[in-house]
Amino acid sequence: MSATGRILVINPNSNPEVTQGFSEALTPLRLVGGPEIECVTLEEGPFGVETQEHVEQVTLPLRRLVLARGDVSAYVIACYSDPGLAVCREATSKPVFGIQESGILSAMARGEQLGVIALGPKSIVRHMRYLRQMAVMDRIAGERPLNLSVAAAERPEAFARLVEIAKELRDLDSADVLILGCAGMARHRHSLEEATGLPVIDPVQAATADAMASVLLARSGV
Amino acid sequence: MSATGRILVINPNSNPEVTQGFSEALTPLRLVGGPEIECVTLEEGPFGVETQEHVEQVTLPLRRLVLARGDVSAYVIACYSDPGLAVCREATSKPVFGIQESGILSAMARGEQLGVIALGPKSIVRHMRYLRQMAVMDRIAGERPLNLSVAAAERPEAFARLVEIAKELRDLDSADVLILGCAGMARHRHSLEEATGLPVIDPVQAATADAMASVLLARSGV
Amino acid sequence: MSATGRILVINPNSNPEVTQGFSEALTPLRLVGGPEIECVTLEEGPFGVETQEHVEQVTLPLRRLVLARGDVSAYVIACYSDPGLAVCREATSKPVFGIQESGILSAMARGEQLGVIALGPKSIVRHMRYLRQMAVMDRIAGERPLNLSVAAAERPEAFARLVEIAKELRDLDSADVLILGCAGMARHRHSLEEATGLPVIDPVQAATADAMASVLLARSGV
Amino acid sequence: MSATGRILVINPNSNPEVTQGFSEALTPLRLVGGPEIECVTLEEGPFGVETQEHVEQVTLPLRRLVLARGDVSAYVIACYSDPGLAVCREATSKPVFGIQESGILSAMARGEQLGVIALGPKSIVRHMRYLRQMAVMDRIAGERPLNLSVAAAERPEAFARLVEIAKELRDLDSADVLILGCAGMARHRHSLEEATGLPVIDPVQAATADAMASVLLARSGV
Amino acid sequence: MSATGRILVINPNSNPEVTQGFSEALTPLRLVGGPEIECVTLEEGPFGVETQEHVEQVTLPLRRLVLARGDVSAYVIACYSDPGLAVCREATSKPVFGIQESGILSAMARGEQLGVIALGPKSIVRHMRYLRQMAVMDRIAGERPLNLSVAAAERPEAFARLVEIAKELRDLDSADVLILGCAGMARHRHSLEEATGLPVIDPVQAATADAMASVLLARSGV
Amino acid sequence: MSATGRILVINPNSNPEVTQGFSEALTPLRLVGGPEIECVTLEEGPFGVETQEHVEQVTLPLRRLVLARGDVSAYVIACYSDPGLAVCREATSKPVFGIQESGILSAMARGEQLGVIALGPKSIVRHMRYLRQMAVMDRIAGERPLNLSVAAAERPEAFARLVEIAKELRDLDSADVLILGCAGMARHRHSLEEATGLPVIDPVQAATADAMASVLLARSGV
Repeated sequence: MSATGRILVINPNSNPEVTQGFSEALTPLRLVGGPEIECVTLEEGPFGVETQEHVEQVTLPLRRLVLARGDVSAYVIACYSDPGLAVCREATSKPVFGIQESGILSAMARGEQLGVIALGPKSIVRHMRYLRQMAVMDRIAGERPLNLSVAAAERPEAFARLVEIAKELRDLDSADVLILGCAGMARHRHSLEEATGLPVIDPVQAATADAMASVLLARSGV
Repeated sequence: MSATGRILVINPNSNPEVTQGFSEALTPLRLVGGPEIECVTLEEGPFGVETQEHVEQVTLPLRRLVLARGDVSAYVIACYSDPGLAVCREATSKPVFGIQESGILSAMARGEQLGVIALGPKSIVRHMRYLRQMAVMDRIAGERPLNLSVAAAERPEAFARLVEIAKELRDLDSADVLILGCAGMARHRHSLEEATGLPVIDPVQAATADAMASVLLARSGV
Repeated sequence: MSATGRILVINPNSNPEVTQGFSEALTPLRLVGGPEIECVTLEEGPFGVETQEHVEQVTLPLRRLVLARGDVSAYVIACYSDPGLAVCREATSKPVFGIQESGILSAMARGEQLGVIALGPKSIVRHMRYLRQMAVMDRIAGERPLNLSVAAAERPEAFARLVEIAKELRDLDSADVLILGCAGMARHRHSLEEATGLPVIDPVQAATADAMASVLLARSGV
Repeated sequence: MSATGRILVINPNSNPEVTQGFSEALTPLRLVGGPEIECVTLEEGPFGVETQEHVEQVTLPLRRLVLARGDVSAYVIACYSDPGLAVCREATSKPVFGIQESGILSAMARGEQLGVIALGPKSIVRHMRYLRQMAVMDRIAGERPLNLSVAAAERPEAFARLVEIAKELRDLDSADVLILGCAGMARHRHSLEEATGLPVIDPVQAATADAMASVLLARSGV
Repeated sequence: MSATGRILVINPNSNPEVTQGFSEALTPLRLVGGPEIECVTLEEGPFGVETQEHVEQVTLPLRRLVLARGDVSAYVIACYSDPGLAVCREATSKPVFGIQESGILSAMARGEQLGVIALGPKSIVRHMRYLRQMAVMDRIAGERPLNLSVAAAERPEAFARLVEIAKELRDLDSADVLILGCAGMARHRHSLEEATGLPVIDPVQAATADAMASVLLARSGV
Repeated sequence: MSATGRILVINPNSNPEVTQGFSEALTPLRLVGGPEIECVTLEEGPFGVETQEHVEQVTLPLRRLVLARGDVSAYVIACYSDPGLAVCREATSKPVFGIQESGILSAMARGEQLGVIALGPKSIVRHMRYLRQMAVMDRIAGERPLNLSVAAAERPEAFARLVEIAKELRDLDSADVLILGCAGMARHRHSLEEATGLPVIDPVQAATADAMASVLLARSGV
């Protein structure tokens, strides 16, 4: 490990634009004296992780990548399905963070009732299963779909649709904090906070901040 | 706000040794280019926050301090009872973190089943009420008391007792992550991790890391 | 303690009309041979308890009042936020009742699924937090806001709005028992029961009845 | 309805000594100007309600008794299994209370974590099913069996055993309020409170107090 | 017990057409070498089980029938209220299945989020109580009423209404598996699966299949 | 599909003795006129599925096998970790059953409070995560480890240890139904039922019975 440590943020899909997008969103977490934040694309990954098959395709490649990169101090799996989280945690004693898990937990420190913005209706059933597994269902105000593809959701034009869904979560479901339910929507975060008056959590930022804390705190300060 | 921001970590009791203790434990989070971390002692606070009366005594002083310190970007209330968290959040649009809440949420990203190390049996009932409010009861493996005062728990001699309780949580309650249920036990964290083989969360570190993330991410990175 | 005991019902806000209103609603509980029911206004209280700051302002004054009135046998805190309930319970070994808690519990003996009539949307988030803390979320059918001030909700003209909201709770949320989510709506209780065909719980009455039972049963009957 | 109303407390078993026992325990609730409290023995009932068959044997006789006694204002079913509660509630628009339900709800206003004293291990499974139905499981600290018959539990000699079990609930399970899980243990209530320092709820008293409140509050006080 | 065993499927109401209807629906479970499936009508039953009184009327007759038919190997109580399930289980060491319980559990193996099609709104409150007792509330997407009588729901003409309600459960409540909440709707199962694209569970079939498994597996295969 | 259908029971590990063992345990479910039950060993599987890595190694091979065997009517994944369940369900519209899921659900129809017999302590954390995901935690009385390997647990000599653990689940945890938490312990089922007096569920039998029901009921009987 270098003096300051390094975080590996892994995009499990093979679309480098997604990796590039969240790497930019992580700029504020790159500090002198802090851990380096390296964003990589999983070459074996599908172009997008949209099905359970895609999820399963990346679990062992993620594990191999974790093992191959023993030089880093913490890992982030940057796909909202948290693929391979359990198997990567088994493979290393270093911390591994999943963006859905960290995103939800971060939101629980910023509001009482969580509203999740999903890409489409199919992901909602999968997310609900995960939220039951996390045992946090009584904190979920609602989850609503954009009905957009990953690519479409990242574009500036998607913003109006995000605002519409976000306001439904706020006004109809009583959500007081929002989570972007996808790795590629960070660009909308600040403007969505302004448009809704609610805190908005980007899950890649949340998980990378968790990783950063774990790396910094692994050094003894006392 | 300064270019880098500043976090105010408030010790709600008036014992400056506690403040000094956790300030040292936060050294690893102090980075060039990162937010300044200022630890203050609430002068109006009791010498220790041990009763509900103590909790209530500090809520409005905490609120006043939050309002008086509009120069900072995020606040941490560094007492495991999270006194005044709701009223401070109401008073400002900036993030306010409570150490119990952040400690529990951080632990939920490091293990499946949480074991809490409490000072004494009285605090357990109060913590359980709070965990029900957080709606995370199905993640709690157990909470066990040290039967030590705050002062005693901070001392090096307390370590053997911490290890004993920690192993009960691990072996009898199946906890796979531990939380130090008090603001003043950070000094034991690393050695307790080594002694038990489990991640150990110090709640002041956890909440300050959450604050650090919120400050850094308030700057646009995209 | 007098032969029959005395209950102190405390209005934590300083509006004597509210005190007067619920004192009249408690007339049916004043029996020969039963405990006296004394309703008092907390002088230090704000004119209305509408924010978390208001809640915190009254907790220690309530505790002092409880301690000053050691002549009574049970206490009721007559504000739907149950301010100071934990600290007052800590201060005395005599029973202290909060009206939200007693109102919800009373409703649970009269119906399966509870509908709460709130003054406004802000109080709903606070109530949900409290209902999670009580760990009774699976019994809540819904909570809907009147969007009225305390003062407006007490007036006869508010009745039509109460009926509208009550019917939504009954017909859209499947509630089979209703709770008036404020200390000042008792005057509407009987007519709302008639208009909806459902039991309607006034929380001040519910808590004072709980206090009455505790006082009577403190005497040995066996 | 008479000017003051009347409560019918029904012993579903045919043992008049049980009826006599709880009638005496209800003396403190008999007030001038308050509802009369009439305790009756269900003639068709078994000598004790110890099995599910016993429960089923009394449901329709209870319903018939409720219908035959249209002169009363509220009903209490005084057996801890709450036999026939749903069918009696269906038969009348007047309030019907079950002693397990009222006992548990009363305890929830006196403590955070409930300890139930059961007669024997068989009743525990049945009670757990009922507590799941009430959706209050997160408030149950534990339930422990006396391993005594109903008759034995009522006798003064049983007190030492009650204290033993009560202290296990307090010290091993962290209960801070106790419920007597049977209709015939009221005689031990005050001394058990003294011996443990915890509030102790007698369920027949709790349900009859609920009935008393419902009768008194059915009269308009505003 | 005969070599192959026998299952007694009991219609707790006295309408032989209902019995005839589900007997036909059980044809696919009648196999050479498998247990015989005998469907009987409870003569003492009401013509339909629509109220709690009806439920209570059949519990002891069901128990007597179970005891009288010691020649069979497993029992099914074929009414969606699962009347008498506990008392019949107490009466015999052989397995007894209730159709609501088995229907819900079967659905939990075919989908994540359950949608229940009820006859009318009154049954929904009763079902919710039962689902709380089963402790499976976090798997329920919703329950919606047909507003049809039992007789009407069985007729072919009811199909359009079933499709309408089923699609609301699927599209508005995000259900991904449906349960027919009544003993007499099996005839609609296959066409409803086709119309909605979701698995549809008939509870009589589900419980009888559970009984069949228990009978077959009572024989040693190892 | 053949006239009678066929069920494919897949052993995800490559140990043919395990496959052989549960194939024998499924003999009672093989009926004339019923679906054929074909047990196969996943050649790509590890010799035992003991880690999360093993789980991930078999998910896509299981999916391929499901797709390759379009001739069958239902699938059972016969490993207690339920590896690949979600991805196999996504791949086919035919029913796919996991043995943990089916085992737990079967047990919920035979008892109130479930006791799970695990091979070792590591599997308990994984099972708890799965039970949270199933949202059935309030039905779990306890899970206790045998501290035996798969191979050892299958041997006759393991029986005494099973009885010991089973009695702890019954007597200390109040379990009234037991689940064998592994695919290879069916041989102990009948004798464990006799030794404990409780129903004992073998999960492979439970899931195959579920599959059998789904195949039979796919044929129209009305």
